[in-house]
Amino acid sequence: MAAPAMETFTLEEIVLPNTSNMAAPAMETFTPEEIPDLEKSSQAERAQWVLNAPEPPGPWRELIHSVRETLLGPCGNKLLALKNQPGPEQVVLFLQGIFPILVWCRSYSVTKFKNDLLAGLTIASLCIPQSIGYATLAKLDPQYGLYTSVVPPLIYAVMGTSREIAIGPVAVVSLLLPSMIQKLQDPVADPVSYTKLVLTATFFAGIFQTAFGLFRLGFLVDFLSHAAIVGFVAGAAIVIGLQQLKGLLGISHFTNKTDVISVGEAVWRSVHHHWSPYNFILGCSFLSFILFTRFLGRRKKRLFWLPAIAPLLSVILSTLIVFLTRADTHGIKIVKHIKGGLNPSSLHQLQLDGPQVGEVAKAGLVVAVVALTEAIAVGRSFSSIKGYNIDGNKEMVAIGFMNVIGSFTSCYVATGSFSRTAVNFSAGCETLVSNIVMAITVIISLQLFTRLLYFTPIAILASIILSALPGLIDLSAAYNIWKIDKLDFLTCIAAFFGVLFVSVEIGLLVAVAISFAKIILISILPGTETLGRIPGTDMFCDINQYPMASKTSGVVIIRVKSAVICFANANIIKESIMRWVTEDQAEDTKLANVKGHNIYKLVILDTSGLMDVDTSGIASLQELHKNLTSHGIELAIANPRWQVIHKLRLANFVSKIGGRVYLTVGEAVGAAAPDAERANIQA
Amino acid sequence: MAAPAMETFTLEEIVLPNTSNMAAPAMETFTPEEIPDLEKSSQAERAQWVLNAPEPPGPWRELIHSVRETLLGPCGNKLLALKNQPGPEQVVLFLQGIFPILVWCRSYSVTKFKNDLLAGLTIASLCIPQSIGYATLAKLDPQYGLYTSVVPPLIYAVMGTSREIAIGPVAVVSLLLPSMIQKLQDPVADPVSYTKLVLTATFFAGIFQTAFGLFRLGFLVDFLSHAAIVGFVAGAAIVIGLQQLKGLLGISHFTNKTDVISVGEAVWRSVHHHWSPYNFILGCSFLSFILFTRFLGRRKKRLFWLPAIAPLLSVILSTLIVFLTRADTHGIKIVKHIKGGLNPSSLHQLQLDGPQVGEVAKAGLVVAVVALTEAIAVGRSFSSIKGYNIDGNKEMVAIGFMNVIGSFTSCYVATGSFSRTAVNFSAGCETLVSNIVMAITVIISLQLFTRLLYFTPIAILASIILSALPGLIDLSAAYNIWKIDKLDFLTCIAAFFGVLFVSVEIGLLVAVAISFAKIILISILPGTETLGRIPGTDMFCDINQYPMASKTSGVVIIRVKSAVICFANANIIKESIMRWVTEDQAEDTKLANVKGHNIYKLVILDTSGLMDVDTSGIASLQELHKNLTSHGIELAIANPRWQVIHKLRLANFVSKIGGRVYLTVGEAVGAAAPDAERANIQA
Repeated sequence: MAAPAMETFTLEEIVLPNTSNMAAPAMETFTPEEIPDLEKSSQAERAQWVLNAPEPPGPWRELIHSVRETLLGPCGNKLLALKNQPGPEQVVLFLQGIFPILVWCRSYSVTKFKNDLLAGLTIASLCIPQSIGYATLAKLDPQYGLYTSVVPPLIYAVMGTSREIAIGPVAVVSLLLPSMIQKLQDPVADPVSYTKLVLTATFFAGIFQTAFGLFRLGFLVDFLSHAAIVGFVAGAAIVIGLQQLKGLLGISHFTNKTDVISVGEAVWRSVHHHWSPYNFILGCSFLSFILFTRFLGRRKKRLFWLPAIAPLLSVILSTLIVFLTRADTHGIKIVKHIKGGLNPSSLHQLQLDGPQVGEVAKAGLVVAVVALTEAIAVGRSFSSIKGYNIDGNKEMVAIGFMNVIGSFTSCYVATGSFSRTAVNFSAGCETLVSNIVMAITVIISLQLFTRLLYFTPIAILASIILSALPGLIDLSAAYNIWKIDKLDFLTCIAAFFGVLFVSVEIGLLVAVAISFAKIILISILPGTETLGRIPGTDMFCDINQYPMASKTSGVVIIRVKSAVICFANANIIKESIMRWVTEDQAEDTKLANVKGHNIYKLVILDTSGLMDVDTSGIASLQELHKNLTSHGIELAIANPRWQVIHKLRLANFVSKIGGRVYLTVGEAVGAAAPDAERANIQA
Repeated sequence: MAAPAMETFTLEEIVLPNTSNMAAPAMETFTPEEIPDLEKSSQAERAQWVLNAPEPPGPWRELIHSVRETLLGPCGNKLLALKNQPGPEQVVLFLQGIFPILVWCRSYSVTKFKNDLLAGLTIASLCIPQSIGYATLAKLDPQYGLYTSVVPPLIYAVMGTSREIAIGPVAVVSLLLPSMIQKLQDPVADPVSYTKLVLTATFFAGIFQTAFGLFRLGFLVDFLSHAAIVGFVAGAAIVIGLQQLKGLLGISHFTNKTDVISVGEAVWRSVHHHWSPYNFILGCSFLSFILFTRFLGRRKKRLFWLPAIAPLLSVILSTLIVFLTRADTHGIKIVKHIKGGLNPSSLHQLQLDGPQVGEVAKAGLVVAVVALTEAIAVGRSFSSIKGYNIDGNKEMVAIGFMNVIGSFTSCYVATGSFSRTAVNFSAGCETLVSNIVMAITVIISLQLFTRLLYFTPIAILASIILSALPGLIDLSAAYNIWKIDKLDFLTCIAAFFGVLFVSVEIGLLVAVAISFAKIILISILPGTETLGRIPGTDMFCDINQYPMASKTSGVVIIRVKSAVICFANANIIKESIMRWVTEDQAEDTKLANVKGHNIYKLVILDTSGLMDVDTSGIASLQELHKNLTSHGIELAIANPRWQVIHKLRLANFVSKIGGRVYLTVGEAVGAAAPDAERANIQA
């Protein structure tokens, strides 16, 4: 106990003098030799610890390590555990790893099934009309939406790790897919080959998603920052809403573009020529009905099912109305024939050769990332409510696999739908069985009820999609981003307007670009802050952040505000440090005539926050040292990181500054003013 | 003196317990309430300092500030001083600011002039042949090189702040300019309009350089990192050398491309058909002569003038030889007519309209940056030897202005030549008068001696350029870069091969791109390190860097390795932290059965190195906290920076983690283990 006590006492000796206005003897500069033995031993020792740190891992090792960090998911230790298991159990564990259903089905019970059944039927009733609507949004025949609500949910049910997520077609993907594919093939001119391209894109999307999962590239999904997603989804919601005007106004000639201006023009043109008010009236009335039920559902939690089945109700009602009044003869646009029956195979429709395959693959990649982002965002947000963890990489494999199989069975890209997942959750689902129930329900309706949907007005589908959009525009999130991080908000806004006024992909691209530009900016933004001692500690902190921090006379302690001293900011940092010193010097010399001291003898560079310094950075540090020396000022380095001190040592910078490298700013200050300590020891 | 002593003593109380293996009572987690009053007061107080720091400057203020930092050069305080001066003195100061010659000419003396005269004549003798050679390299008529050695040096002499720099045409620029201009206009097909474009590019380069200086955008030059320049210049040197093979082998048909492969092909083709060995023999013999003299100059410092005048000597000798032997009739290629007389005006030749102006301006920009980079590198390296400072922005104005005027007087882009500056320096120049002397000498030779150069063999010019190249390939610098920073070396190599195998601009582009990609990589590379207490201090450092650092039982202290926790790395960081805890947890529980304690109660996140955290980062910090809580582990934050704590407070993260924010890791540890302290107080 004694030794450390003494050590720390001597430590205090170093620090305390700087609280009191430093005494005259502290004014000369001190070479390490002059430091009293007792002090020197422990301090020099620590300085040696800094200098003689073991060899840090090389950049490649660093890189490989952090790649491993990135790739080795949380199931890493499971894998380790797996190694120690005997043969058969290994197989079981392995299978359980791929098919989580094997784990949770054991503890499955009748009561759980009751809840899942209820939840399943509820989301089915919401899913059927939405699927048809999203299919039309994706410029596909309605049945493709229903197909997409059959196979993917079933596959996800056995492979997924989330419990609440409801799989199927979603708005954003249904918008993104055509916006990229219709450049290659006009859906109106040749719907068949357009559908083929969409299915091919789905296949590629599935492959990419599976690959991301298998190679644990989950972090790629993170490249869409929270802010970017908020802006992007909000923009997409508005674009989708505009697309629905076609159905709501019963416009026959519409634009293929998605940006506000061209859609606005198209609507404006049509409104002046041919549009049927009946569509509009019918659509709006049911839209208001759906919104009203949602309002009720919000008010009374036990009425959660009402908004859930409202869409189905309005489909049935409107279909009946049209059927009885034969309103389709009065200009009400109707769905007409929906092909019934189970998912047909679409293996032969995939076009994996030909000139367009590259473009289609690119579209697949973009959709894959967006779909994964939504699915994982949905999954995480609900799993964190129930307090369990979902494995991002495993999720990707599941979603990817379901989309690959989907592309073989006439499904387009499916993912986790936020609106339906929310319903599923509030309907009290227990496991993914609710998805199975939903899928079966859709199968039944595909077999029996499709021809009943003949008279369903398109305006209703539009109003159903419209009713789902407000949930996508998250103003409070946007406000939070604005409140917390203005630059993040810029990303958000850029994504929003990019989607709105240019195109969906451009919006995404701009958002990602800005996000990374921001990182560069923050990392190299030059700037320095002077540190002062926090009373009662030997901490030295930014005197702007801590006004109570006390400056140490004769010493200027500077911390660089950027993470790296590199080619881009090294010179500016050097010059601003020189300015700190020289300008203060200028002032102080005026004072000097009065007080007789208070001129800097030492500049301490606190490098604790410095991640890296490159050769340009070291070069300008050496220039800084030269310039300081010409002003008769010494340079000391405090608390350098592993890589930094290693590089400085390699560049012989340490020896150049006379080995003035210390573990803490406190010790650097102390080393400069030992006499003051002696004074304190006597005191 | 008493108060701080007590404070610091209590500080030790916090720290010491963690050196000894923590005692049993420390094993429960403690809410701040339970901390003893004496301790609480000061510690809680400091925690409040962290939390109630004044509002940090907003991002815009921050941005504007660092922009000001960047733009306000070191002459900032001069300007301030200027304000306080009366009228007439202001004018003088202002003029002196623009024309530094007004400052140093006062103290000019005869002795100084003697040195300058000698130095001036020496660099003139080197400059004349080099200028002719570089002009041919730039695919211009020889006299343009001489013109460029007249006007720019004179203008720089009155405006420049460097004292040694020798202005004129240089190799790299003479290579870069045609490589970009000849895409627009073939110099062989139509030399006149090619020359016009070159002069226009020169004009734009000058404008850009002046603008950089006036708007203090000096930092733009820094975007070419040291490593990039080393690689780029070395690559350029080799490319230039290959270009000289044309003259050295007397090849008439040569390629316009600059990359190794196409030049190699061109040479190979020509060597098999028509080349005159005489050119080769003549060139090589004089090349070896020049190199020999340089060798001598290196050996005996007082013979420095020998390598300097060797080129001129060999020009004179070779010209005489050819003249006497009429060797030009035997296939020796000669310069033929060089237009004599002073610089003609080229105002009317500038083409500031037309379709190509955009491309020409782009070329001008690239050349401007490269030229400035070389000039400032040269200036800095020699000024730092003599120990005075050169003002980067003022330099840019001077160089820009001289190039603008140059473009009016038939000069192409001039800048500081490294080889001639070195000669100027070793010739003992005192001021820029040596440049004036050089210019006058060139004028005289333009007036009188140009027709004497009729018989000068082109092979000699090639060998003179070749002899200058080895100085451009800085192997030791490349080795240093490799030794210190492998990633920097990658930039260097990329620039080198980019120039060598693709093109000069691509080489530059690649280098800049890699440099910035590196910054992103370093800033977001995820990874965490556990900290331990350095014995005898209350510092907590990376236990890998400091093996003697002691872990604190029951507490895991983690520092994030990256500069920002943002969308790109937040999730990975979160997961790796969770892995830290849970895996160790797993091990420790095994131990727990033995020891009966040693399970983590607290995770302390040392955020001292964290520059920024964005909304995605905060989101995943909140997830981290949730997950930790579900493991019964608390989360504490130590030493957050201004911006970071501000954002965390705005996001209510601080309240979420129960206000566990501390000034230092030590205090965070102490707060978790007050009983141990009590024990120490009794002890």
